[in-house]
Amino acid sequence: MKPYAVGVDVGGTTVKIGIFRTTGDLLQKWEIPTDKSEKGRNILPDIAKSVRDMLSAKKIGLEDIQGIGIGVPGAILNRSVVNRAVNIGWDLVPVKEQMEKLFDSKVNVLVGNDANVAALGEMWQGGGRGFQDIVMVTLGTGVGGGIILHEQILDGTFGAAGEIGHMTVNPQETRICGCGKRGHLEQYASATGIAYTARTVVAQTKEDTLLKGKSRITAKDVFDAAKKNDAVALKIVDYTAEILGRALAAVATVVDPQAFVIGGGVSKAGPILTDTVQKYYKKYAFHASEDTKFVLATLGNDAGFFGAVRMVL
Amino acid sequence: MKPYAVGVDVGGTTVKIGIFRTTGDLLQKWEIPTDKSEKGRNILPDIAKSVRDMLSAKKIGLEDIQGIGIGVPGAILNRSVVNRAVNIGWDLVPVKEQMEKLFDSKVNVLVGNDANVAALGEMWQGGGRGFQDIVMVTLGTGVGGGIILHEQILDGTFGAAGEIGHMTVNPQETRICGCGKRGHLEQYASATGIAYTARTVVAQTKEDTLLKGKSRITAKDVFDAAKKNDAVALKIVDYTAEILGRALAAVATVVDPQAFVIGGGVSKAGPILTDTVQKYYKKYAFHASEDTKFVLATLGNDAGFFGAVRMVL
Repeated sequence: MKPYAVGVDVGGTTVKIGIFRTTGDLLQKWEIPTDKSEKGRNILPDIAKSVRDMLSAKKIGLEDIQGIGIGVPGAILNRSVVNRAVNIGWDLVPVKEQMEKLFDSKVNVLVGNDANVAALGEMWQGGGRGFQDIVMVTLGTGVGGGIILHEQILDGTFGAAGEIGHMTVNPQETRICGCGKRGHLEQYASATGIAYTARTVVAQTKEDTLLKGKSRITAKDVFDAAKKNDAVALKIVDYTAEILGRALAAVATVVDPQAFVIGGGVSKAGPILTDTVQKYYKKYAFHASEDTKFVLATLGNDAGFFGAVRMVL
Repeated sequence: MKPYAVGVDVGGTTVKIGIFRTTGDLLQKWEIPTDKSEKGRNILPDIAKSVRDMLSAKKIGLEDIQGIGIGVPGAILNRSVVNRAVNIGWDLVPVKEQMEKLFDSKVNVLVGNDANVAALGEMWQGGGRGFQDIVMVTLGTGVGGGIILHEQILDGTFGAAGEIGHMTVNPQETRICGCGKRGHLEQYASATGIAYTARTVVAQTKEDTLLKGKSRITAKDVFDAAKKNDAVALKIVDYTAEILGRALAAVATVVDPQAFVIGGGVSKAGPILTDTVQKYYKKYAFHASEDTKFVLATLGNDAGFFGAVRMVL
């Protein structure tokens, strides 16, 4: 194994990059803006230039690089080609091929889905450290998921393994999910979903609540109020946690992981959320899997480039 | 690779055994009764004697055996130890160790869960041939499941991967599932579940139906009537297929397989069931995974020992 490797996480606003020793130590991390103009055609050249500059500054030659792992918010074919990444303007982009060319064919490049590489990062050096089989759930604007089995990303046939945000949890739902279908986990357990639930409940309730009178209630408002024992907020947390706990119990009947790693902005609510989710998980889980561990993600926005580099190690 | 291998499928009534060439050809299959007396302590010695007799008759020496794979209806630890197999009276049984001893430590033995090895068998030489990543669903008295990824059984942390019969599909259900919890897929999509639905519907409907007047309606009665365009029977099939299709769409958000292989007695209903399940699958599936293949299992009761032998090849 060569001494260094590079992890890259391409996001809709910034690209996060890390240079690692292949022992796993992070040497340097930085970020550059994502240039989405012209269908995102500058993104890979920008990354290549920035990585080359940083390597030069550190006096690291390309011959000392084990590989470059890249996480992209889209469906990935064969660890090589991105098949649509709407957020950054890409259609079909042969990332591995283009990126290897940008490094004079001296460096091996592998590509992964952003949620999946984040899961791998958390398994490697984050909340999932010590486990080989985890399911990561990212509760942000949407609900992302990544499945790691035997320390490897599970991609799925259509690149859709771990898309648990789009599990139908309420077939009676009339609202439409971002994906075009209805009643998906993401519509309830994302920050957006929790805020929607809260606004609906507050508009209807006659109970007193700290959430009343807010011009636009957020998920954070709900958890803040719940921590102050606000009965209405607690009910919203309970409602959300039951849906999420039940969905994770369904996930466990499929892959039966060692641990669920909960990340994303909503997870900052901490135990008031995760303990309740775990309570409902136990209620709905198949008896053999009731004791699956629940841990919080710890790498935050760095999980992506940690997992990306792990792919090439 | 040595020229021969043995597959064994331990069931509650009979043990099914096959001798294979390691090229995959089945040379001989037979079965012996399962002796459940004395906590099932005779089962492994009975199998060993029967296999040894058959090998002698075929003039095959133990030194020509690549290995013996055994499927058991219970949770398996580390491909070696059975941790409870209620149907055959076993608590903690070190099957690999005991069986290898019964073959004078000359043969390697591996152990798998019966539903999981059946899935592996179907992938290898049954309905799932040509695929590497499948989910098998067995619709029988209960609903069993097995997950094969990269041609390998997924066991799960607690031996519970693929237990999709115990996915909660209706949290409002009041009836209790065989496992002790409520609202599980098995309560609707098994032969027992379909018969229950049918009896409930027929007791309440005012419509004319072929199912009326039967002393005890079975799942087969429902499909037979549906094939004759009986409106009530068709509604029951539709109701069942929607629940199953939605559950499989949930499974696909986790592992995104190439194909679902549908087996078990209920699958004998054929296209009237599977086409309807697939219709609802497409309705509920995440868009990327809508085109997952649906195929029928073809090995019937032989799937278990086919998959068991595949473990040692």
